[in-house]
Amino acid sequence: MSIETIPATRGKAVRLKAGQAIEVINTHGAQVVDTWAFCPEDLRHFMSMEHTRVENGRLMPAVGQTLFTNRREAILVMEADTSPGIHDTIMAACDRWRYEHLGCTEYHRNCADNMVEALAELGIDAHHVPQPLNLFMNIPIEADFTLTQGVPTTRPGDKVVLRAARDCIVVFSACPQDITPINGVGRKPTEAHYCVLD
Amino acid sequence: MSIETIPATRGKAVRLKAGQAIEVINTHGAQVVDTWAFCPEDLRHFMSMEHTRVENGRLMPAVGQTLFTNRREAILVMEADTSPGIHDTIMAACDRWRYEHLGCTEYHRNCADNMVEALAELGIDAHHVPQPLNLFMNIPIEADFTLTQGVPTTRPGDKVVLRAARDCIVVFSACPQDITPINGVGRKPTEAHYCVLD
Repeated sequence: MSIETIPATRGKAVRLKAGQAIEVINTHGAQVVDTWAFCPEDLRHFMSMEHTRVENGRLMPAVGQTLFTNRREAILVMEADTSPGIHDTIMAACDRWRYEHLGCTEYHRNCADNMVEALAELGIDAHHVPQPLNLFMNIPIEADFTLTQGVPTTRPGDKVVLRAARDCIVVFSACPQDITPINGVGRKPTEAHYCVLD
Repeated sequence: MSIETIPATRGKAVRLKAGQAIEVINTHGAQVVDTWAFCPEDLRHFMSMEHTRVENGRLMPAVGQTLFTNRREAILVMEADTSPGIHDTIMAACDRWRYEHLGCTEYHRNCADNMVEALAELGIDAHHVPQPLNLFMNIPIEADFTLTQGVPTTRPGDKVVLRAARDCIVVFSACPQDITPINGVGRKPTEAHYCVLD
């Protein structure tokens, strides 16, 4: 069991066999980790937040709940979560256009490109960038439906365990967002870690 | 100005030029209309609820707000809405697997296939089925993040006007859901109507 790093502002893709699990560690306590999962035999078959929300009847997955694909098949199970359980499933991965709209005039690292790059490191071409499971991300929804860029509710070392219900490729991005406080009031993206469990 | 029918349980695709608008009419008062928009020159560039939520900072679009693509470009503007303004942006289109999970043993018409069929009628191959803008659909989010299949809050004749910010193809599906009360307590899908406005 070796602990691997998701470098700050970078992505990482990992192949999991059915039955294996992956532990995602919020090492420094306020880092959002955008997470995707794909079926290796067909990238068009992927973990889908919009199908997961319907199947679970819940905005975000809770411990014991399943994450479903866009064909409503089980792909991961949220087996454990030491955090308060606040994750996001409704905000798109940050991308080059997001940072342009936030005023960046030069290229800003972003979760969408991180996903594509991490898959490319395994020799895989991305089909498109699905809505990620944004682990540890806190988006309060107000009564008037306003969405706030909240600070994570997590503590250093908080962990989520995702068990593979089928062979899959899991992709993480340690979110590079440093303009909003989504990665903490310090607005300083940090590394996170993961560990494959048999 | 001619009023066109979206037949009950069926889909319809319409080409709009930039500046044209389309009025969607909830004729019988409790019909959900799943709505998509695509850029005609590249179906991989489409109206994206997850990007729209971030750009507007709101769970669902309000009058005056823009609907954005997955490249965060304006594609439609919600120009008017006579309904209470409750729409859904977080529940996947119903599909064959949804109805299988609800116990159907034979094929059940569904919004995902309606989208694909409606585009095919214009000679267009769908790339994938994005999260739709589910007009008139009411999904209350409870404090514990439970999602409820609510009854629409609309009245017969309620209308939404969507103005095209660029050339696009708009696709509607009069949702065939008759197992949950999402199309009203009577669980009876009905037709809806639309009208292109110059």
